[in-house]
Amino acid sequence: MLVQLTYASRISKALGSEDIKNILKHSQTNNQADGVTGALCLSSGIFLQILEGDRNTVNRIYHKILQDSRHKDPAILDYREITARQFSEWSMGLITRTDDNKQLFLKYSSDANFDPYSMGAKTLRGFFDEVVDNVRWLRKNPD
Amino acid sequence: MLVQLTYASRISKALGSEDIKNILKHSQTNNQADGVTGALCLSSGIFLQILEGDRNTVNRIYHKILQDSRHKDPAILDYREITARQFSEWSMGLITRTDDNKQLFLKYSSDANFDPYSMGAKTLRGFFDEVVDNVRWLRKNPD
Amino acid sequence: MLVQLTYASRISKALGSEDIKNILKHSQTNNQADGVTGALCLSSGIFLQILEGDRNTVNRIYHKILQDSRHKDPAILDYREITARQFSEWSMGLITRTDDNKQLFLKYSSDANFDPYSMGAKTLRGFFDEVVDNVRWLRKNPD
Amino acid sequence: MLVQLTYASRISKALGSEDIKNILKHSQTNNQADGVTGALCLSSGIFLQILEGDRNTVNRIYHKILQDSRHKDPAILDYREITARQFSEWSMGLITRTDDNKQLFLKYSSDANFDPYSMGAKTLRGFFDEVVDNVRWLRKNPD
Amino acid sequence: MLVQLTYASRISKALGSEDIKNILKHSQTNNQADGVTGALCLSSGIFLQILEGDRNTVNRIYHKILQDSRHKDPAILDYREITARQFSEWSMGLITRTDDNKQLFLKYSSDANFDPYSMGAKTLRGFFDEVVDNVRWLRKNPD
Amino acid sequence: MLVQLTYASRISKALGSEDIKNILKHSQTNNQADGVTGALCLSSGIFLQILEGDRNTVNRIYHKILQDSRHKDPAILDYREITARQFSEWSMGLITRTDDNKQLFLKYSSDANFDPYSMGAKTLRGFFDEVVDNVRWLRKNPD
Amino acid sequence: MLVQLTYASRISKALGSEDIKNILKHSQTNNQADGVTGALCLSSGIFLQILEGDRNTVNRIYHKILQDSRHKDPAILDYREITARQFSEWSMGLITRTDDNKQLFLKYSSDANFDPYSMGAKTLRGFFDEVVDNVRWLRKNPD
Amino acid sequence: MLVQLTYASRISKALGSEDIKNILKHSQTNNQADGVTGALCLSSGIFLQILEGDRNTVNRIYHKILQDSRHKDPAILDYREITARQFSEWSMGLITRTDDNKQLFLKYSSDANFDPYSMGAKTLRGFFDEVVDNVRWLRKNPD
Amino acid sequence: MLVQLTYASRISKALGSEDIKNILKHSQTNNQADGVTGALCLSSGIFLQILEGDRNTVNRIYHKILQDSRHKDPAILDYREITARQFSEWSMGLITRTDDNKQLFLKYSSDANFDPYSMGAKTLRGFFDEVVDNVRWLRKNPD
Amino acid sequence: MLVQLTYASRISKALGSEDIKNILKHSQTNNQADGVTGALCLSSGIFLQILEGDRNTVNRIYHKILQDSRHKDPAILDYREITARQFSEWSMGLITRTDDNKQLFLKYSSDANFDPYSMGAKTLRGFFDEVVDNVRWLRKNPD
Ligand SMILES: Cc1cc2nc3c(=O)[nH]c(=O)nc-3n(C[C@H](O)[C@H](O)[C@H](O)COP(=O)(O)O)c2cc1C
Ligand SMILES: Cc1cc2nc3c(=O)[nH]c(=O)nc-3n(C[C@H](O)[C@H](O)[C@H](O)COP(=O)(O)O)c2cc1C
Ligand SMILES: Cc1cc2nc3c(=O)[nH]c(=O)nc-3n(C[C@H](O)[C@H](O)[C@H](O)COP(=O)(O)O)c2cc1C
Ligand SMILES: Cc1cc2nc3c(=O)[nH]c(=O)nc-3n(C[C@H](O)[C@H](O)[C@H](O)COP(=O)(O)O)c2cc1C
Ligand SMILES: Cc1cc2nc3c(=O)[nH]c(=O)nc-3n(C[C@H](O)[C@H](O)[C@H](O)COP(=O)(O)O)c2cc1C
Ligand SMILES: Cc1cc2nc3c(=O)[nH]c(=O)nc-3n(C[C@H](O)[C@H](O)[C@H](O)COP(=O)(O)O)c2cc1C
Ligand SMILES: Cc1cc2nc3c(=O)[nH]c(=O)nc-3n(C[C@H](O)[C@H](O)[C@H](O)COP(=O)(O)O)c2cc1C
Ligand SMILES: Cc1cc2nc3c(=O)[nH]c(=O)nc-3n(C[C@H](O)[C@H](O)[C@H](O)COP(=O)(O)O)c2cc1C
Ligand SMILES: Cc1cc2nc3c(=O)[nH]c(=O)nc-3n(C[C@H](O)[C@H](O)[C@H](O)COP(=O)(O)O)c2cc1C
Ligand SMILES: Cc1cc2nc3c(=O)[nH]c(=O)nc-3n(C[C@H](O)[C@H](O)[C@H](O)COP(=O)(O)O)c2cc1C
Repeated sequence: MLVQLTYASRISKALGSEDIKNILKHSQTNNQADGVTGALCLSSGIFLQILEGDRNTVNRIYHKILQDSRHKDPAILDYREITARQFSEWSMGLITRTDDNKQLFLKYSSDANFDPYSMGAKTLRGFFDEVVDNVRWLRKNPD
Repeated sequence: MLVQLTYASRISKALGSEDIKNILKHSQTNNQADGVTGALCLSSGIFLQILEGDRNTVNRIYHKILQDSRHKDPAILDYREITARQFSEWSMGLITRTDDNKQLFLKYSSDANFDPYSMGAKTLRGFFDEVVDNVRWLRKNPD
Repeated sequence: MLVQLTYASRISKALGSEDIKNILKHSQTNNQADGVTGALCLSSGIFLQILEGDRNTVNRIYHKILQDSRHKDPAILDYREITARQFSEWSMGLITRTDDNKQLFLKYSSDANFDPYSMGAKTLRGFFDEVVDNVRWLRKNPD
Repeated sequence: MLVQLTYASRISKALGSEDIKNILKHSQTNNQADGVTGALCLSSGIFLQILEGDRNTVNRIYHKILQDSRHKDPAILDYREITARQFSEWSMGLITRTDDNKQLFLKYSSDANFDPYSMGAKTLRGFFDEVVDNVRWLRKNPD
Repeated sequence: MLVQLTYASRISKALGSEDIKNILKHSQTNNQADGVTGALCLSSGIFLQILEGDRNTVNRIYHKILQDSRHKDPAILDYREITARQFSEWSMGLITRTDDNKQLFLKYSSDANFDPYSMGAKTLRGFFDEVVDNVRWLRKNPD
Repeated sequence: MLVQLTYASRISKALGSEDIKNILKHSQTNNQADGVTGALCLSSGIFLQILEGDRNTVNRIYHKILQDSRHKDPAILDYREITARQFSEWSMGLITRTDDNKQLFLKYSSDANFDPYSMGAKTLRGFFDEVVDNVRWLRKNPD
Repeated sequence: MLVQLTYASRISKALGSEDIKNILKHSQTNNQADGVTGALCLSSGIFLQILEGDRNTVNRIYHKILQDSRHKDPAILDYREITARQFSEWSMGLITRTDDNKQLFLKYSSDANFDPYSMGAKTLRGFFDEVVDNVRWLRKNPD
Repeated sequence: MLVQLTYASRISKALGSEDIKNILKHSQTNNQADGVTGALCLSSGIFLQILEGDRNTVNRIYHKILQDSRHKDPAILDYREITARQFSEWSMGLITRTDDNKQLFLKYSSDANFDPYSMGAKTLRGFFDEVVDNVRWLRKNPD
Repeated sequence: MLVQLTYASRISKALGSEDIKNILKHSQTNNQADGVTGALCLSSGIFLQILEGDRNTVNRIYHKILQDSRHKDPAILDYREITARQFSEWSMGLITRTDDNKQLFLKYSSDANFDPYSMGAKTLRGFFDEVVDNVRWLRKNPD
Repeated sequence: MLVQLTYASRISKALGSEDIKNILKHSQTNNQADGVTGALCLSSGIFLQILEGDRNTVNRIYHKILQDSRHKDPAILDYREITARQFSEWSMGLITRTDDNKQLFLKYSSDANFDPYSMGAKTLRGFFDEVVDNVRWLRKNPD
């Protein structure tokens, strides 16, 4: 059974761009082996991640991520069975807020800051749908 | 929670284009800070404004606007929870009736004059949808 | 409240093209002032007219038209509340059957002749939708 | 083609209950012969009538009613093609506001007074649906 | 493939109740053998018959009926593929207009007289649905 | 009332291309006068014809066609009320199976041979919709 | 135009049951004259009020209520055009949390305490629908 | 994954009621162990069986049944994923045509005889839905 | 935001009925304070729990439960935003498989044993909907 | 009746590309004669085949395929009545996983490997729809 899980968490302490690179690389290696795909968004110290793959695998990875001390306050925001993956080309794509996509973040945010914790499932789906439609906002590697 | 509120009001006394400029500038500064977006339409002495943002913020701003002596007879015409903003690129866009968009105003109006007080929620949504589709009718600054 | 009313009537005696021109011109002047829009179709001695605008205004005009001795056998064929006008660019457009649009008339007609009296509301809406989509069939002035 | 037409009008001068009786009786006799059914509601000096039957017949009767000097300000409020009659048992039923059905009138009215002129098609259908469901509010003869 | 065909025809010359009895009896015997079910309605000299069964069989019977000189002006009014029969208990039920079901006939008729030729498919289905819901109006044998 | 009737029949004896030409020409002349439009498909000795026009006219023509000894085993396969004609440009178009449209015939056929008798209403509508979308498969005159 | 507006506010200082009685009585008198109906819910120091009536009237009353110093932090939670009133029998009904309806409050609340400020429009509609279905929870007068 | 498979087959040689009893008993024992439920219908020498359970198990059993020489001409008629079982109380219920349910069989049959081979998926679902609604027609043991 | 989360887990070692009692009692005390409601089902050594309440609270509790060594192999099976709670009367109800509800378990299970790990979201919702409809299967305290 | 059947099976022993060529060629010859169309997908030792054509023919072929010792563990994964074929141009098309369409396989697969046995009907339909939309992935002959 193919599922999609979306959660948010807060950076537990200041992580440099090097640390993000490491998380991303490690995730990409693991996910490729596990047949997991998805995207990771980092904005204002909040992670927003979408994971898709086999129900058991996604659960196992999510539970592993929960133990990771590099972030805290994890909260599942959306979860659903899907017929097809949205991110089949991304073992873990990176979405970061730039001047180019500032409006995209505001469009789905109730505040001036992008705060996934205040977003409902429909808004989150709208956000990721638009990301996928504009793949240029998705990068395979952080700079 | 992201909401959209539309209200109409009447100019309380003759406002010059300088006054409108002031309202607009002040609104744009405030709204940007508050994460509020929207549009303001002025035609035949009637304001029609759409405000979108966090439910609490939109309420707070609307209640502040209600106190403003520069207009009167305020009336909420539409209100709804939204999944995404329509005006994410406009902290407060200005729509004015020109020869160019005269037909647009007539299309949603029951009279020869554009009278928002006589319009229902569906008609208002149709009007703003078409405005957004023709962004050239939306300006950031009054001339 | 914005409404749309469609009725048919029969020419009461032979009207020349000059008479039609007069009806049209007079209608256009009145309707512009009243915020009424629509189209008038004349084929095989039968008028088919669609009027849109404020509910009270449309009723007032329709009742005035009913008294006009230049036609007879009036019958309302369709009426509905609308969210937006279809003919916002036409105070009263003229549609006449030419070789060019012969097929259009046959498409919505059950007989070889175009007979609005035998048409239901859905068929009439299909007919006017197609007219609006092919505006070249709508003229502002008769030749 | 079976249609339903609803219109409102104002009593042109004070009509006594005897006059209403006459209108009703005459209507019932005519309508039975014409295969027309419906209901007539009188409240605060406003008539609200629903007529159903063959499209041509309903139009002919409505046009006759328009000429009747006992009322004025006629306005079509709703019109639609129907598959079956709602009032098949009433050549012309009478609905009057009593203490018993006061709440029914308020339920569909925006003001404390029942004012059909301010009601849309959906509200009117809701009103008549509820009347038909509570047939005791429909009487064949005025007292 | 299970289908339902509805047609109307006019009595070609005065048929007595004995003749109707014969048509009915003969039909019932034939239909039972053919796995055909349905109902026959006779009112104001017009037959309205609904036939259901295998597509080929219904076609064969309808074509046989077309040749029958006891009626004329046959016209198919409705035809559709069905998932289940409506008249599975009636090889050919008889529906006649009585004082008891007068309102039923008026409900689906645009005129004071029941005229199937002026009825559309939806109205006819409404009529037969209500007949089936009130089986007492369906009789197996004419008196 | 505008309807569409589809039936199949078998060629009763070998008809040459000259005979088909005659049927087609005669049909086109008659149909144009009657306001009837449609298409005739001939494949593997089976006719599949779709007729559209006024309900009474289509019935009258179908009953006339039933008597024609040039075919046999007629069977109505589909019938419905329509809002607009599909074949308004064809008094009677001809569709023949060629190498070019072989796949089209197979697409809607359960067997290697095109057998309308085994096709349901939805499949037939799919077939004719695709024919209309590819008008080049419709010819006005047989070669 | 008939609308329904729902807002929440906080008691500005401790109000005794006598004060609530006064608000309710005054509201009932005013609303009856204005053709306004609705309900007022008080729980844990938070008011939740639903007002229904003519769009202009509801706006006027809401703006008057906003000025009332007996409460603060007003926030519109829901607003919509309606076809019929839900509270036509209540000029202003009172809903208070008792042991009897404790579960009802929890059912629509995300916390153990009933906090309208955290509720969306759909949840609020669910709450009021269930209140209306159990009219015994609605009282005309506070004890 | 829970699925439902429906197939028909013909008795390969005359089976007595004792044989049917054996098939049924054996099926019930096997199915209970396999978590399979369903019903078996026997009429005019044709079996119609519905099997529900895990997708793999239903496939395995169906393939075993295919080998059984007691019947022939097997044909899958319907298959779908289901959310819940319809026959959860029947490891294998028996449905036989009696005078009592004769009409039920005719209702879903195009011929006078019940022939599942000519039935589509929707008709079969209608048939089994009605069987389940009238459990008395389902028996655990043949007499 | 009100959400509902459903997960399954396996008993990590043999738990006696006393242990279950403890888990239940402790959960009920905690959940009542947290405004959390739900149900716990234990069958064949597998827990199936549904938790409903505020999104943050449900996440916090679920993450606490994940750490509990009394079970293992946790897997989220369903998660959704809800408008109203289903279990508002149960701080944590207990559902156990008895002879009485054996069929209920089989109805939603693909195997003879009830295995939530193989069930999709729709099937799980069907199961809990039926449990709620038959509250007698829900107990507040284990025996 | 036109149907579509999808099943999976496992290669029973190592088959070379020559063997696949033989299966394909033989299938194409048979299917063309039988009016059967479809596609065969081979990936990681698992066959996934979709067959479409007349219900009886598809059943007959499927039952023949079941006997073929070149594969094992057959399981029907999807089956439905269709209005038109999807593969009308392919008597049996071949789909193989290449670098070019790797992402396509992952998109519908829950694991890194493409495993049809774990896929539901909706996912399978999504997969084949996308294959048909990108016909270049379908080949008539294996290399
Ligand atoms: C925000 C965030 C996102 C992560 N995403 C993933 C992921 O998608 N896949 C993954 O395997 N690990 C991910 N990790 C890392 C896991 O927490 C954990 O360190 C890693 O899975 C351990 O991998 P290992 O089992 O190879 O040691 C993520 C960590 C963080 C902080
Ligand atoms: C028609 C109209 C529209 C307005 N729109 C806004 C607005 O969108 N945002 C805003 O902050 N103020 C708006 N204002 C101004 C407010 O009424 C008020 O003057 C302003 O919010 C006060 O700002 P301050 O809190 O910075 O003093 C508007 C005023 C008028 C007359
Ligand atoms: C077929 C037909 C269509 C007409 N349409 C309109 C119309 O759209 N608007 C209008 O004002 N008058 C229309 N008229 C003319 C009216 O019947 C009437 O003559 C006119 O409204 C009187 O205008 P006045 O009030 O300016 O004298 C129409 C007349 C005919 C015969
Ligand atoms: C409010 C009102 C409602 C009426 N309703 C009907 C009606 O339903 N049917 C009818 O024939 N006449 C109705 N009439 C009367 C007609 O206006 C007209 O007087 C009558 O049809 C003339 O009938 P006659 O043709 O038999 O002289 C109504 C009149 C009024 C004022
Ligand atoms: C109004 C009407 C309805 C009829 N309905 C049926 C019918 O449902 N079934 C039938 O077999 N014959 C019906 N018939 C009789 C046929 O026209 C024809 O006489 C009869 O089928 C011949 O039967 P036979 O083939 O046994 O000689 C009907 C005739 C009329 C006039
Ligand atoms: C397969 C087939 C299709 C026909 N289609 C039509 C048709 O569409 N219109 C038509 O008038 N006649 C059609 N005919 C011819 C009629 O059967 C009949 O010969 C013709 O209508 C007689 O015309 P008339 O009334 O002018 O003598 C068709 C005949 C066949 C065999
Ligand atoms: C929570 C609350 C609810 C109220 N509801 C209403 C109401 O429904 N109608 C109303 O007229 N006044 C209501 N009031 C009172 C108004 O704020 C105001 O005092 C009143 O309308 C003044 O009435 P007056 O215009 O008759 O002086 C409410 C006040 C509070 C604090
Ligand atoms: C019409 C028919 C229906 C059957 N249904 C079932 C069934 O539902 N379950 C089953 O296990 N066997 C069923 N069987 C019997 C199987 O064909 C086969 O004999 C049986 O499964 C062998 O059981 P075994 O594996 O215990 O020897 C059926 C046989 C026939 C002829
Ligand atoms: C199957 C299972 C279900 C549980 N459900 C709940 C629950 O609904 N709420 C809860 O607070 N604890 C639940 N617990 C217990 C938690 O794992 C944990 O022991 C408890 O929340 C700790 O409570 P404390 O924070 O009061 O020490 C459950 C434990 C198990 C094994
Ligand atoms: C994976 C697979 C797919 C097959 N597909 C088909 C097919 O689509 N059509 C077909 O006729 N045979 C197909 N076959 C071959 C049949 O199993 C069988 O060998 C063949 O139909 C026998 O043909 P014959 O009846 O001409 O001897 C397939 C075999 C395998 C292993």
